[in-house]
Amino acid sequence: MYRSHNCGELNASHINQEVTLAGWVQKTRNKGFLIWTDLRDRYGVTQLIFDEARTQKDVFELAETLGREFVIQVKGTVIERESKNPNMATGDIEILVKELTILNAAQVPPFTIEDETDGGEDIRMKYRYLDIRRNPVKNSLLFRHKVAMEVRNYLSAQGFIEVETPVLIKSTPEGARDFIVPSRMNEGQFYALPQSPQTFKQLLMVGGMDKYFQIVKCFRDEDLRADRQPEFTQIDCEMAFVEQEDIMQAFEGLASHLLKELKGVETGAFPRVTYDEAMRKYGNDKPDIRFGMEFGELNEVAQHKDFGVFNSSELVVGIAVPGGAAYTRKEIDALIDWVKRPQVGASGMVYVKCEEGGTYKSSVDKFYDQEDLKKWAEITGANAGDLILVLSGDAFKTRTRLSALRMELATRLDLRKPDEFAPLWVVDFPLLEWDEDSERFHAMHHPFTSPKPEDIPLLETNPGKVRANAYDLVLNGNEIGGGSIRIHDKDVQALMFKHLGFTDEEAKAQFGFLMDAFQYGAPPHGGLAFGFDRLVAILGGQETIRDFIAFPKNNSGRDVMIDAPSVINNAQLEELHIKLK
Amino acid sequence: MYRSHNCGELNASHINQEVTLAGWVQKTRNKGFLIWTDLRDRYGVTQLIFDEARTQKDVFELAETLGREFVIQVKGTVIERESKNPNMATGDIEILVKELTILNAAQVPPFTIEDETDGGEDIRMKYRYLDIRRNPVKNSLLFRHKVAMEVRNYLSAQGFIEVETPVLIKSTPEGARDFIVPSRMNEGQFYALPQSPQTFKQLLMVGGMDKYFQIVKCFRDEDLRADRQPEFTQIDCEMAFVEQEDIMQAFEGLASHLLKELKGVETGAFPRVTYDEAMRKYGNDKPDIRFGMEFGELNEVAQHKDFGVFNSSELVVGIAVPGGAAYTRKEIDALIDWVKRPQVGASGMVYVKCEEGGTYKSSVDKFYDQEDLKKWAEITGANAGDLILVLSGDAFKTRTRLSALRMELATRLDLRKPDEFAPLWVVDFPLLEWDEDSERFHAMHHPFTSPKPEDIPLLETNPGKVRANAYDLVLNGNEIGGGSIRIHDKDVQALMFKHLGFTDEEAKAQFGFLMDAFQYGAPPHGGLAFGFDRLVAILGGQETIRDFIAFPKNNSGRDVMIDAPSVINNAQLEELHIKLK
Repeated sequence: MYRSHNCGELNASHINQEVTLAGWVQKTRNKGFLIWTDLRDRYGVTQLIFDEARTQKDVFELAETLGREFVIQVKGTVIERESKNPNMATGDIEILVKELTILNAAQVPPFTIEDETDGGEDIRMKYRYLDIRRNPVKNSLLFRHKVAMEVRNYLSAQGFIEVETPVLIKSTPEGARDFIVPSRMNEGQFYALPQSPQTFKQLLMVGGMDKYFQIVKCFRDEDLRADRQPEFTQIDCEMAFVEQEDIMQAFEGLASHLLKELKGVETGAFPRVTYDEAMRKYGNDKPDIRFGMEFGELNEVAQHKDFGVFNSSELVVGIAVPGGAAYTRKEIDALIDWVKRPQVGASGMVYVKCEEGGTYKSSVDKFYDQEDLKKWAEITGANAGDLILVLSGDAFKTRTRLSALRMELATRLDLRKPDEFAPLWVVDFPLLEWDEDSERFHAMHHPFTSPKPEDIPLLETNPGKVRANAYDLVLNGNEIGGGSIRIHDKDVQALMFKHLGFTDEEAKAQFGFLMDAFQYGAPPHGGLAFGFDRLVAILGGQETIRDFIAFPKNNSGRDVMIDAPSVINNAQLEELHIKLK
Repeated sequence: MYRSHNCGELNASHINQEVTLAGWVQKTRNKGFLIWTDLRDRYGVTQLIFDEARTQKDVFELAETLGREFVIQVKGTVIERESKNPNMATGDIEILVKELTILNAAQVPPFTIEDETDGGEDIRMKYRYLDIRRNPVKNSLLFRHKVAMEVRNYLSAQGFIEVETPVLIKSTPEGARDFIVPSRMNEGQFYALPQSPQTFKQLLMVGGMDKYFQIVKCFRDEDLRADRQPEFTQIDCEMAFVEQEDIMQAFEGLASHLLKELKGVETGAFPRVTYDEAMRKYGNDKPDIRFGMEFGELNEVAQHKDFGVFNSSELVVGIAVPGGAAYTRKEIDALIDWVKRPQVGASGMVYVKCEEGGTYKSSVDKFYDQEDLKKWAEITGANAGDLILVLSGDAFKTRTRLSALRMELATRLDLRKPDEFAPLWVVDFPLLEWDEDSERFHAMHHPFTSPKPEDIPLLETNPGKVRANAYDLVLNGNEIGGGSIRIHDKDVQALMFKHLGFTDEEAKAQFGFLMDAFQYGAPPHGGLAFGFDRLVAILGGQETIRDFIAFPKNNSGRDVMIDAPSVINNAQLEELHIKLK
């Protein structure tokens, strides 16, 4: 062992002990006759002192050559610091060095290894191994480990069994794109990497495994939106002989446990809203409920006046911005411009200032009197001092736009506090969603999701109205988990494939094994999968997942550190029976 | 919830309770007026009773329709059994059924779902979800989960951090074949699936992570020998600021912990042998030391007599077979035929019977007298009643052949007891091994393994003699783990690549990121990886890994259940910029 202690554990109780430490040179201050060096490892920083008067000459001279990030080993005595640093765990002591060994010299790093670094995203990704030395990244990875351990120990104690499912599986064109893997031993054939272990966990239920989980890598070859990764990690779970309520209880238990153990947050029972309610109240199926600003629908009070824009709209809907009455004209114009940006897409926005005296001043005073506007205030929950912002148009699009505005304003108003946690369930999702491109219905969740039995007849008459036994767990405006009761009946599954546009042959070729399995005694079952990267990030108080992944890829799916993907040689292609196009 | 209790927990203390159970029909005995049904779930079997006298007519009639593997739910009363079954946890009770619901009917399964099934390997693999219902497979998967939990909790308590490394990495032609993954977003480029996270864990050490582990899927596109899988699981570990001894202590700790917690076996310190010793004493670098039969080298006492075969051999070596003196001539001839099979490859075998009176009878009595043979017996440790078997020829091949014979005899003599555990370390492996095909040296372990510093000069003069800081952990004749101290110096790494036949350009293209990393403060580091599938199997008392993997592939790398790999459509190939050859 190159050390007797780590760099985070020595304190006044160790004074006069002889110790050996090893680590990286964080920084060095050379006063000519005294050299202080901060020595860093995973556990902390300890100050070393080389003193011309007390340190051997050769050691002192060697100390003068130390650069940032040199890896060194020192032996010395723990002594009391003259000027203590109460902000450091080791701030009471320093090490008077007797022996110094340079284990590995270092070039000057391409960015500073400090909490606040001067390195941009690109350079930090290229030298990720240096970035990981920085506390923010290191602590994120340590936190991720802690969350994973909590998840495993909690679920295991609840009788769940972690089962590893295969990574080399079969391509199924439904949903997102698969990554595929040519088979050398089976010419012209390909494996696919799993987008999730969905069918395997269902087969484990058919196999009687009953309570399954797995923290597992999944893969999706999609054009990467910001903060998506081609490989990502799920906490994948499934249970048999359960109903929706049982699953929600089980995983509400897990989420509560994590919030309590990791964040010290006690939550009561998680609120539940239906998908329809969530859309109506927040314009969003993953609402952030840490703050209010719920939607108020104004059709009844704002239509059938002389304002044609509203009269011709499917939906007129507003929110109250706390304290917004104080905004200047310029600030309000900027907000209007913000919603008119192509990313949001509104064509305009109406506003109402709720003034202190109980009066209202709006951009549509020409069409609405004080009584009208008072009703708007009541419906949006606006108080004196607030600003009502109103959008109108197609219901779905308008809700989505107002939701974007709500989130933007909440961020600006600091209402999205990283140390507050507001979980909720969204239930009763639609089973199907219409896809404009392919002009057919797609499974909103996946093709194995069970429709609500009472809605099955609607499959023939009004497929878009069929509700699923599907539920999402939402935390702070992010979907952290989603699941459903699955179909376990061969005929219902066949019906579902039919409505998704599969021919019998296609269904059999792709999912024949599952349909077969359903004939040999499939129990009722359902489950849920958490997006582990996002869950960890949110619990860690952050919105971006990248720092919680040791070696993330960039938005082109590239690992810039190892430079992958890369070209491969022809012999390899040859063996795999493929060639470049 | 479809049940109030599971099928393994009810006993006499529950008598008279109303319960709801759900599970699979294991079997039914219909006596006309009484029907007994064994109901099975993950937790056990509970006997149900339908009694014409006490059960409602419609329920009784429905019970008559139940077939094997039907999924049912029953409500009823726990009653005392008339004839108890002390071999069953629930053997004191049965359930007098009041309500019966068929949750899912089942076709007759293609093989019996019993501990001893009538299904062959192929059919069980095709219907793996049914195979998993059988206790031997189910218990293997439960055991695997338990081992994984023990590993994680033990290592985590020791300060190790589990870090997920990427699955989509870069192809490196060294070693076994990579599986590759075409990149859609980067035309003409490919990811590779990792054969191990080797370089990433080293980069984590450069990143200061210090104590890393990961239970992780790895991939190897090799022609599959029996009991190898294209995707397999490792417990991958790495430590920084450590020497070989520290790593061996750390993972001997883990292995001891697992043996104690899972098998109740207390081991002392694991014995250690060098690679050279292991080869000399057992002809094998992963010796099974649950039994003796150590090799005795007979060159000194058997050469320079008149027996030309031995005189012209590099090595003459024998083992003593306990009780083998009683073998008939026919039995001995069969053993001689066994070693002459092409898989073993010996050209003949000499034997010596050690008779009870202290006399010897051998197949080479013409050349050796009793005094000679007595020496043979001393050297091989043969006692009266034993049989000495002697092979000769090229040293390496002869040792390998005698090792095969030693293992075969131990199996026949029941000396390889699944409930005995004999771990040992094999150390000081050669750094390089000569590859006949490519006519160059290959890294025996991998190109990052550190040579013993004192042997570095031999790289130029006698590369085959260079010893590595490499070690294997062997359990019951299987390598369960292997590792090494890594090179952490750029120049030594460059030297190593050179001796492995890499040009500077090749080394830079493939491992430039690692060489770069070594310039920015790489600490001394090393590690070990356990083959998790094999470890679990051996702890489970078995030699084959297949039943410890939920969904294994066959020897053609095929998942016969889902029928993967499979053909994919041209649109997919098109998008990936490849075509079939």
